Amino acid sequence: MNGSTNDRLLRALLREPVDTTPIWIMRQAGRYLPEYRTVRERAGNFLTLCTTPELACEVTMQPVRRYRLDAAILFSDILTVPDAMGLGLHFVEGEGPRFERPVRTERDIRALGVPDPGTDLRYVLDAVRLVRGELGGTLPLIGFAGSPWTLATYMVEGGSSREFDRIKRLLFDRPELLHRLLEVVARSVGVYLHAQIEAGAQAIMIFDTWGGVLDPVAYREFSLRYMARIVESLPREHDGRRVPVILFTKGGGQHLEAIADTGCDAAGLDWTVDLSAARARVGDRIALQGNLDPAVLYAGPERIRAAAAQILEAFGAGSGHVFNLGHGIHADTDPDRVAVLVDAVHELGARYHA
Amino acid sequence: MNGSTNDRLLRALLREPVDTTPIWIMRQAGRYLPEYRTVRERAGNFLTLCTTPELACEVTMQPVRRYRLDAAILFSDILTVPDAMGLGLHFVEGEGPRFERPVRTERDIRALGVPDPGTDLRYVLDAVRLVRGELGGTLPLIGFAGSPWTLATYMVEGGSSREFDRIKRLLFDRPELLHRLLEVVARSVGVYLHAQIEAGAQAIMIFDTWGGVLDPVAYREFSLRYMARIVESLPREHDGRRVPVILFTKGGGQHLEAIADTGCDAAGLDWTVDLSAARARVGDRIALQGNLDPAVLYAGPERIRAAAAQILEAFGAGSGHVFNLGHGIHADTDPDRVAVLVDAVHELGARYHA
Repeated sequence: MNGSTNDRLLRALLREPVDTTPIWIMRQAGRYLPEYRTVRERAGNFLTLCTTPELACEVTMQPVRRYRLDAAILFSDILTVPDAMGLGLHFVEGEGPRFERPVRTERDIRALGVPDPGTDLRYVLDAVRLVRGELGGTLPLIGFAGSPWTLATYMVEGGSSREFDRIKRLLFDRPELLHRLLEVVARSVGVYLHAQIEAGAQAIMIFDTWGGVLDPVAYREFSLRYMARIVESLPREHDGRRVPVILFTKGGGQHLEAIADTGCDAAGLDWTVDLSAARARVGDRIALQGNLDPAVLYAGPERIRAAAAQILEAFGAGSGHVFNLGHGIHADTDPDRVAVLVDAVHELGARYHA
Repeated sequence: MNGSTNDRLLRALLREPVDTTPIWIMRQAGRYLPEYRTVRERAGNFLTLCTTPELACEVTMQPVRRYRLDAAILFSDILTVPDAMGLGLHFVEGEGPRFERPVRTERDIRALGVPDPGTDLRYVLDAVRLVRGELGGTLPLIGFAGSPWTLATYMVEGGSSREFDRIKRLLFDRPELLHRLLEVVARSVGVYLHAQIEAGAQAIMIFDTWGGVLDPVAYREFSLRYMARIVESLPREHDGRRVPVILFTKGGGQHLEAIADTGCDAAGLDWTVDLSAARARVGDRIALQGNLDPAVLYAGPERIRAAAAQILEAFGAGSGHVFNLGHGIHADTDPDRVAVLVDAVHELGARYHA
């Protein structure tokens, strides 16, 4: 590693030696940053931010300018894929995402096709290229997508959900129909991530935000299976360098061994999992990413440092840990506390990489 | 067991031999039943149902008249305790519970006292006595309360929450203050459950609906510790019979061993836990209750029977299993499907108790 190229993240994801533990933060480009809110207001709405490559690039760069983070993550939304499939995404202020044309019937499902990322999601690929240009090789860029199961929940429910009644009705009453939906979504996510890698994404994360609402049998059949297919289908090298894949099922700590079996390089963990026990379970098979409760950032600097120290100690010595929150940073977080965390991880993490 | 007294539930909770696996259903007295909706409409609002002993008794009895359930559970709400502490509970149609005077400051917390169940929650005790009279010894009655942590989330947030920002801010920034709150809530829950037992509740369940949003260290310190204190403080016998205590932390499957350490008789499990693995972890220390995904009741009769069979097989032979859903039954469940489940459990469960 030389002064101008920080590749701690990629090395840690591949369990190669690093000088200290790398850190990035889920939703690091987001509402807690005043500079983000300024751009967001100028854009008028959230979707314009996602679909305008210059704006997406600008907000992607904001947190890496402000903090000594070890990665940039593309600013986008997991729902751009179903939007490109024709569902009509819009965001209602304070209420979250909504689809104009949710997928409810067998006919709806049969009508779905796989979008062409080069045309239908070109704005994302343009943003990837812009960000890579801006970063100039100093930091790696993470691309991402939602898991097929997670995207399907929004597509069937029509937006966010508490109980997931509609999609679970499909799952338990018409499982063959749900598989048909998941197949087309998985193919769409696969080609989309492939295109992100070709445009310049150097690591990939798949967000399975809602896999944790399934029972263990249903999780394997309806969520993990489709993530595994995507992992298998992706090119594992680009420009002569391995492109690591991180799978993150929120609330899925009990499935860690099965997640490692997919052939992914790393698993994201939410804060309900004991990191030390998690490492003991997967050994050196995959790297682990996580897992501070985002609410710890409400505490004062000393408590933040202590909480970071606890997580570093739980993972212990050696490479294979990427520090992160266990979920996206809360919008009302004080930006100064993020600096405290980032610096604490780098300072306290060094001792585990002697 | 004679024909007029069904004590399968109490025996299974104490791991004594039974003829088949007992079943009751969380929220079995509720909106999915047309006869419930009739009484609920007549009452005008939900809180009137809870605070009028005759109405609470009537809706408690409805599901045990309709199905061959193995227990009645008192119709009430976990938030009656904070209401009795002076917070001013009301329910906004379609939005859930709200407190007029949430607990936000050190001063708010210091002002809280322990309610006297005999006066402040007398309507609950009257309902317990009425239900016991109606049941006439044919079925046991389960009493319940919310866990201190779960009640505190509502008291601090002022109602339901997605991120638990306010109480987690307290937890991470002012832990000593949160402990003070949890102490007075735990004492209130303790005397309340004690009074329910004296009024005739034959088993007790503590609902820790939100313990699963905590990291493992915080869970033990802020949720489990206070449940353990309550378990210790309760009279374990009444009228010459042991009163079993069930602890249920939703999303708390990873803490099962620690839950067993509290001295409770049984642990409730949500559907994300593999029941066979759970049993292997606790052995014969406690009974287990659960754990069908409530959404399985959207499926047809054959799939419901198959799902019930899978769970019975996962627990395996011997006493110590109380069949239940992993969470409350959904309001849009077809009541006929509940009969399918109850009968399937009794019929298919018998083979595990040869």
